[in-house]
Amino acid sequence: MKTFTSAADLQLALREDKNNHKSIGYVATMGFLHEGHATLLEKARKENDIVVLSIFVNPMQFGPNEDFETYPRDLERDENVAANGGVDYLFYPTVHEMYGEEPSVKVVVQSRTDVLCGRQRPGHFDGVATVLTKFFNIILPDRAYFGKKDAQQVAVIDGLIKDFNFPIQLVAVDTVREEDGLAKSSRNVNLSDQERMEAKELYQSLLKAKEAVESGERNAATVTALISEHIAAQTSGVIDYIEVYQYPELKPLESLAGNIIIAMAVKFKHARLIDNITLYIE
Amino acid sequence: MKTFTSAADLQLALREDKNNHKSIGYVATMGFLHEGHATLLEKARKENDIVVLSIFVNPMQFGPNEDFETYPRDLERDENVAANGGVDYLFYPTVHEMYGEEPSVKVVVQSRTDVLCGRQRPGHFDGVATVLTKFFNIILPDRAYFGKKDAQQVAVIDGLIKDFNFPIQLVAVDTVREEDGLAKSSRNVNLSDQERMEAKELYQSLLKAKEAVESGERNAATVTALISEHIAAQTSGVIDYIEVYQYPELKPLESLAGNIIIAMAVKFKHARLIDNITLYIE
Repeated sequence: MKTFTSAADLQLALREDKNNHKSIGYVATMGFLHEGHATLLEKARKENDIVVLSIFVNPMQFGPNEDFETYPRDLERDENVAANGGVDYLFYPTVHEMYGEEPSVKVVVQSRTDVLCGRQRPGHFDGVATVLTKFFNIILPDRAYFGKKDAQQVAVIDGLIKDFNFPIQLVAVDTVREEDGLAKSSRNVNLSDQERMEAKELYQSLLKAKEAVESGERNAATVTALISEHIAAQTSGVIDYIEVYQYPELKPLESLAGNIIIAMAVKFKHARLIDNITLYIE
Repeated sequence: MKTFTSAADLQLALREDKNNHKSIGYVATMGFLHEGHATLLEKARKENDIVVLSIFVNPMQFGPNEDFETYPRDLERDENVAANGGVDYLFYPTVHEMYGEEPSVKVVVQSRTDVLCGRQRPGHFDGVATVLTKFFNIILPDRAYFGKKDAQQVAVIDGLIKDFNFPIQLVAVDTVREEDGLAKSSRNVNLSDQERMEAKELYQSLLKAKEAVESGERNAATVTALISEHIAAQTSGVIDYIEVYQYPELKPLESLAGNIIIAMAVKFKHARLIDNITLYIE
């Protein structure tokens, strides 16, 4: 594994690979790698000749009151995970390498952002889309891998790739779960023992909703009510949102049809958990 | 020459060329091709294996009171110019092919826009940068050719390419001039005979300014005064602006130094003419 801090050096290496007709798989992260990232790397490793991993805590996607400064960083550990995951090129640029003195352009995301978690994070997805535009142009990957756990991020990136005509295949990878169904997250360690027991009910409530839809329920409000009742009865968590949308457009629908997402965020004492499922209704 | 209306078809053809290690030169236009475009094509033809020309009247770069609907279009004539210019691929997409139903992302240009012609055209360069981001991703050119006559456009594209890390070389091509120095423009035909005589004074005034700077003048206001006096004395045109900036940053400077641009717009009865020169001051 080679580690790059210079975009130009990475481009030089990749140009040679491309000249040799190697396919490029790309995994974008903010580091502090966990099992979710390992799953993305595993899939990228299987499907491409060259795997590129970027680690960059992107200031542009943090709000003024968010935790950019204190976001966890551990390059040494990440390098081990990356090497074990079969990464060929680790790209670890500085903020200055990515943004220079004063960038003259940015990407603005005009839809898919004012729902779910994005509603509370104005500008967050502009930062995500801008930095990915840069990484995509530096790396020119054939395939880019993102986890479905951040379903809104996947929806935004789907729009970015399609609407800017990036010649990149977006690969959305299934959420990795604990044995009891809880979506893996670095935040799960912040749950108390009691909360950890209850937390499995998030996914259980989504499965219940799925079952209802598969049995013919088509009313969005009925489906979200089903979930909120389940969460209220089975957990001590406070519901942040439970929402149902077309996917990936993230537009509301009265009557469920086509590709839909059912997504939720629930706050426990020291951890806010998110989860979602996507369904196709004929 | 092959004409494409589908981005996917063009990409397929270009992918084959790239696999064969052909270099790609790209000229972006809104059609109604004139000698300026022919010069860009000529240069692209010399420097690349494959030349791609796009013709697209981009609605996103027209303001609500601008002439999108009536902008001149003549595909048949353009096809002749393109074929004679050695174009390999002419890309002529519809608005729907480029923008689909409702794009989820756009590029916003944050600097270099609120001066010169851009001041009167809010959003214009967002449209330019957005459509070029799309064309760049569809075509993946090695080099892209733009005329220095639109110096602000070149500055914005310079920022777009650098700040979004497009692996593209921007080639800024010198303004083509009539024998008396008047910058070629399709608008020149709208000048009266008398105005056409006077119009050569725009470039003459720029040369006078250049001479002053080369003789040691470093005060921006003195330089612009020199030009405005010349224009007022020698023409019936009304000065829209005469401005001096750092180039390509387009930031004001009190004392001239480094790369600078001296740019002007002058209104005649039925034609608004622009011209500029760039200088490097040690």
